Formats: sequence, C-alpha cells, structure tokens
Amino acid sequence: MSRIQQITITPIAIVDPPLLNAAGLHAPYALRTIVEIVTDDGISGISEIPGTREIDLALAEARDLLIGKDVFQLSDIRRTLVGHFGQDTAAERGATPWDQRKMVHIFSAVEVACLDIIGKITNRPVVDLLGGRMRDRVPFSAYLFYKYEGAGGDLAFGTDPAATGWDAARQKSALNPEEIVAQARAMCEEFGFQSIKLKGGVFEPRQEVDAILALHEAFGPEVPLRIDPNALWKVETAIEYGREMEGVLEYLEDPVRGQENMAAVRKALKTPLATNMCTTSFEDIPRSIELGSEDIILSDHHFWGGLRASMTLSGICDTFGRGLSMHSNSHLGISLAAMVHLGAALPEVPYALDTHYPWQSDEVIVGGRMKFVDGAVEVPAGPGLGVELDRDALARLHQNYLKCGLTKRDDLVEMRKKVPDWEFKLVRW
Amino acid sequence: MSRIQQITITPIAIVDPPLLNAAGLHAPYALRTIVEIVTDDGISGISEIPGTREIDLALAEARDLLIGKDVFQLSDIRRTLVGHFGQDTAAERGATPWDQRKMVHIFSAVEVACLDIIGKITNRPVVDLLGGRMRDRVPFSAYLFYKYEGAGGDLAFGTDPAATGWDAARQKSALNPEEIVAQARAMCEEFGFQSIKLKGGVFEPRQEVDAILALHEAFGPEVPLRIDPNALWKVETAIEYGREMEGVLEYLEDPVRGQENMAAVRKALKTPLATNMCTTSFEDIPRSIELGSEDIILSDHHFWGGLRASMTLSGICDTFGRGLSMHSNSHLGISLAAMVHLGAALPEVPYALDTHYPWQSDEVIVGGRMKFVDGAVEVPAGPGLGVELDRDALARLHQNYLKCGLTKRDDLVEMRKKVPDWEFKLVRW
Ligand SMILES: [Mg+2]
Ligand SMILES: [Mg+2]
Repeated sequence: MSRIQQITITPIAIVDPPLLNAAGLHAPYALRTIVEIVTDDGISGISEIPGTREIDLALAEARDLLIGKDVFQLSDIRRTLVGHFGQDTAAERGATPWDQRKMVHIFSAVEVACLDIIGKITNRPVVDLLGGRMRDRVPFSAYLFYKYEGAGGDLAFGTDPAATGWDAARQKSALNPEEIVAQARAMCEEFGFQSIKLKGGVFEPRQEVDAILALHEAFGPEVPLRIDPNALWKVETAIEYGREMEGVLEYLEDPVRGQENMAAVRKALKTPLATNMCTTSFEDIPRSIELGSEDIILSDHHFWGGLRASMTLSGICDTFGRGLSMHSNSHLGISLAAMVHLGAALPEVPYALDTHYPWQSDEVIVGGRMKFVDGAVEVPAGPGLGVELDRDALARLHQNYLKCGLTKRDDLVEMRKKVPDWEFKLVRW
Repeated sequence: MSRIQQITITPIAIVDPPLLNAAGLHAPYALRTIVEIVTDDGISGISEIPGTREIDLALAEARDLLIGKDVFQLSDIRRTLVGHFGQDTAAERGATPWDQRKMVHIFSAVEVACLDIIGKITNRPVVDLLGGRMRDRVPFSAYLFYKYEGAGGDLAFGTDPAATGWDAARQKSALNPEEIVAQARAMCEEFGFQSIKLKGGVFEPRQEVDAILALHEAFGPEVPLRIDPNALWKVETAIEYGREMEGVLEYLEDPVRGQENMAAVRKALKTPLATNMCTTSFEDIPRSIELGSEDIILSDHHFWGGLRASMTLSGICDTFGRGLSMHSNSHLGISLAAMVHLGAALPEVPYALDTHYPWQSDEVIVGGRMKFVDGAVEVPAGPGLGVELDRDALARLHQNYLKCGLTKRDDLVEMRKKVPDWEFKLVRW
C-alpha cells in the first residue's frame, strides 16, 4: 500500500508572449500550478494544471481529505472530492473564455500525480496504465497565434535582439496573413509539425480566412489546416466562410457558440467541426449526440477530470463515431508528458494534438525543454510520466509567480493595456 | 517486462441442472473454457469464458499472435486480435439465443488472464487496476428458473436423495408459481439474496406474471423483483403485463425483441426496462440512445470485450443516465471473481448482479465454492483475481468435457429430449 503522505502545491509563472485571442491578450506570464504528491513509502509523483489562486486554495483545502489515501484508489479519491466540492456543472463552465471548474482541475492534478506514482511502483510508463501503447510518438500541430511583437516575461512587448531561429521568430508580431505564414514556416521548421492550426477570433473573419488561404497556398494541400474562431462567429458567418474554406480545412473548430448553433453549421458544411467549447464535459455529451453538434472533441485531461476520464471520453467518441484530439493552454513539460502518455494510449488514431509548448521557453523538468521530431513527441522513457521536477527551476518559476502578482488568467485586463476600450464579446461577427 | 510465453486452453464441462428458458433446456453439463497464461518470468494468470469448440479453436489459433506480447499492452493485443479475426459485428450477435461472437470472447479470456498477471506483478487486486474499490462486497440477485426435476450431470433428471438444504431444493422441479416461490425461499435462505429475478419466456405470460405476483406476495415490497422473458413477448403483451406488474418490478428485462420494440414498450410503462439482448455491443449504443430502448444495460465482460471495456460501458451508462447490472451464464468461480472485481470498481452503484452460480456445484478454484453473505460476494483478497486454479478439479472437469461429448451449448436439442416437437421461436406470445 502506498498512501498519500504529503501534497505540495506550487504556483508558478512562466514567460508567455503577447498572444491574441478571442478573450484578449496573454499576459507576460502564464500561471501554472505544480503538484507533488509523496507517499508514506517515499515515492513522489507530479502533475501540472492551469494556475488559478482559487483552485490552488481548493487544492490546499482538499489536502486533508487526501492524506492517507492509497494512490490506487482513484475512483474513491474522486468520490471523496466530489463529496466535498460537489460535482462540477455545465453551468459553471458557462460562457467564460476558459474552464475554471474546480473538481476537474483538482482531480486531474491528483490523478496524474497518483498515476505517476503508480507507474514508479510498477516500473511502468503511465501509458501502460491506460491500456498500453498504441504508438510510440504522438503528433502535434503547429499552433499559430496572432500576436503583438514581444517575448513576454519581463521583456513584455520588447524583444531579445540576441535571439535566433524560432526563438527570434517567436517574438515577432503576426497581425496579417503574411506574418502568419512566416510564423508557420518558422514554427514548422523548428518543430517539424505536419498540420497547422490558427487561433482565430481576433480579427474580422475575412482577414483570418485570408490567412488560412495564404497558409493553404504556402504549404499546399498535404498540410491539414484548422482555424478556431473561439465561437465568436454568427451562424451565417460560419456557414459563409466555412463554405469558402471547404476542402481547405481539416476541421473548423468552434466557429459558433453553443451546441445548437454548432449543429446548424455542421448541417450546412461538409468540413468536420471540432470543439472544446460547446461540448466540454460528460454532462454535455447526451445533448451533443442528440444534436450532432460536432465531429471531433478536443479533450483536455485538465478539464475532463484526468487521464482515465479522457480514456472514457475516447471510448465514447469511438462508440459514437466522433474523432478525438486535444486542447491546450500555455503549459510546460509535465502537462506535455501527460498528454503524450494519453495520446499514445488512445485506441484510435487521434488528430494531431494542440500544444502551446512552442510559445513557452521556461521548463520545470530535469533536462529542460522536451523535444519534437517531425512534429511529434516520443513517449518519455522511464516509469510513471518519465519526467522529474527540476527543483531549482521550480523555485525560480515560483519566484516569478510571487513577483508578477498575477492570481488568475485575465486576458481582458492585458488587452486593455494595448486597446483601452476593448470589450469581450460572446459573439462578435 | 512480462511477456506471454504459454497459453493453455482447457475446455471443461460442469454439472448443470435442467433449467428451462426461452431457447429450450440446459443440458446436463454446461461448457466453460479455462484459459491460463504464463509469462516468461513465470507468472500465471487465469480466466474463464463460456465454452464453445469454435471459440476454443479460435483461441488456439490466436496463440501465435499472442506469444511474446507484454501483458500490459492490452490495447495492442486487442488491435492484433481484431486485425486477425476482424471486428465482431452486431449482425453476428444476431437473434441467436446467446452470444457467440469470437472477438469479444477471445479478448475477454486474454484480458482477464493478463489483468490477473498484472495484479500479481503489482501485488494488487484486479479491482485496483480498474480505478480502485468503490465497495468491498458486490450484491447479486437470486436467479430463479423454471426447471424440471433433476440435478443435471450424470444424474440428469434424477435427484440425489442424500442432498439437503439448497442442494436438495436445487434438484426439485419448479413449473408453477408455488414451486417458484419455494425455490426462491430456499435460494434466498442459502445465499441471503435481497433481490430476485425470474427467468421467464418458458410458459405463457399469465403463468409467469402470476409467479411474479406470488413472489411479491411472499417476499413483500422491499424485495426488488425482475422478470426476463428473453424477448419472447409481443409489444402488446409486454405492455399489458408490464402494466399489471407496474410498481411490483424493479425492472422488466428484455420483454420484447429489438431496440425499436423495447423503445415502444418503454414509452408505455413506468417500470424501467433492462437488456442484455437488444443492446449487446458498443455498436448498438448509438441506436439505443437515439431510440431510448432501455434504462439499464446488463453488461457481461465475456461479451463486451473484457473488464476495461466494461468500465468504458459503465462510463457510457453514467454519461447517458443509464443504469448498469450484469448478465450471467452458468459459470464457476473464475468468472465470478472477475465479475466481483468489476462490480467493486464501478463508480456508480450497480443493480444487484445476475449469477447462475447457485445452480452450479462444481468448482475449479482452490478452496472450492465461493461464499455469498447476505447475497453479496466479498472482493477476493490477494493480488490479481485472488483465485487460483485447482489443477485436480480442472483435470476432472476436463474429463467431464471429453466424456459428455458436447461441443457447444444447444438448449433446443436438450429440450426435444423432453418435448420432441418443441420449436424455438423468436417471438412466442
Ligand atoms: Mg479551441
Ligand atoms: Mg437476460
């Protein structure tokens, strides 16, 4: 028996460039929370979740409930947490730009760390605890962003003149189709991505669709393209531009808000629709199936309640003929490792996953930044997640957290530093 | 790494009394197949599936594909088997009285034995490999059968005058409501069951419904009752008698054939409907949800492709507000142990499970027959399934197999020994 004896919750802030999106602008630092669980027999497991002070406090509150639990009793741990915090509801997910539900975050943090421990106990990689490896390398897509010039962090909107290669390209502005194509070229050259996603919902649709057409022109038909307007388009807009991009897109991600609107767009287009906004929890699934609101679900183990829940979601997608991919936020290597173990375990071949990882430069794991080869990440060797905490890096990134003063993500506040009268809208065009 | 080095497939025949059902009559012996897998590091795992010569041969054919596989690579093993045998189809399940699909049986046999091995490697009970234990004891229901007098086995329709208690009651005939009530009393006294199921589809509905009403009268409203006419009723019949049993039944199991008919009955009744005949595979789920054909799915890890697939089914049921229970065939302790580990792992509380176990007297595990207390079975202690092969018993039951000459279940042939002109009908009343 390996019982939870100690839980350490460390909020960190990582350098993040000024990326634009439907909710505004990324702050100079993105917040993550690193959780370390140590058992009474001295085995340690780690996990990483999006950082929010409120969720950090809830995690701290959960500590007393978790101490003494056997790390294998994941369903019981979940039941205990639900008993305390209540089940998340779809209403809580609501129309906020990103997911702030407590239970899924907390349980994901605990579950991934426990799976890391179980892997170490059994001398097996986490993928083997999820049914075993269906592939050795997990493909990701290039995740393009409109952005202001700037490196993020203390440099904020400034750039480092000594930077070269992708590191330099990463700091450049991208505010029109030409700059987006240049960003794509630099990113694909560095990471070898073989599919490309553009985060939209920033400029009016014409300009964003032109960027997609420019990417199609530049990369040719063999590179799958995706655009994600983050639900800012009206149904008519989505149908109009969706038709224009028919045959060009691999899938169209959340063009409109809500399952009903997604279903209406889906009926009008041949292009598959993907979502991480209209179907975001198991509670949403029945209505999604009833309406036929999407073809592909972008799972996210931080938001769906862990890796095993994501495997259940995968089973649901397989059962109902839905495809699966993964959503991402700004993140480091612990989350990436967890995504790769999950991606390697999925019985059906997933669409290339989203990752913000190229936009980050910090790392909190021993050995530094994880490597992409031909756009894919190899399942880390070694038991558990196969990545270990770099405690010096953790201390430094925690200092960043204390210094930057942020307590939650707020892209609206950041955006107003550039565009003072900027307003968030649920539907813009 | 623990790689499969040896697979031993042993068909056995176990004494089975003359139980009546919609497909005819149980033969004096029921067939099971015991599979033992041994790894290159000398760890052994076991499983039990329904016995059919055709599936035994397929299992033997699968051997070459499986030797050398790491026991943790369950998804890959499944992919390999599907690659060789093809995916089972709902059409193969068809309208036969019981499930004869190859892939689900073979994979279930391999998966359960591998999980037994993984449990031994990790020193964990199988339940802990399925998310951990949500309960220590798994409740079963009393499974009543119309039957001819007889003990089965070499005695066939004869009885053992030395038998006492349930062992004597088990041999008695039950062909009317009074005898069914007597059977229920004897079975509940012996095993402590707290819910009761009557296998119907044997006599015309009036008589079977009278048996349910007699059970209700005898056991009172606090004992949940179920009846399973095995899809032999017409929709009108099911609605008529379903209305008469409204408030008396916990659920009505497969009153009619096919998802459409089930949905029609479900609309007309307040009593929940359960099935192990209209929704029998993941392929059936989308149409089941679309039509609303049942409230409760009776899973069976032998037919749904193993314990992990059953957990996925449980996730689907939870997601769509369906309940879960388990179906059973005549079986021994290895299948029972697997059912108990699964039942203990289910995140939501299942309905008391079906089991034929009280009707069997043989056993193939060390220590003999498993114990029921208050109708429930405790999760076996020890790693893996927590049960071990009794090799003397295995040899003896294999001799039974060779001696009895049966190669598959055929209740029609048996029935005609008693009622020469008996015909199986898909819909009878
Ligand atoms: Mg998205
Ligand atoms: Mg049944």
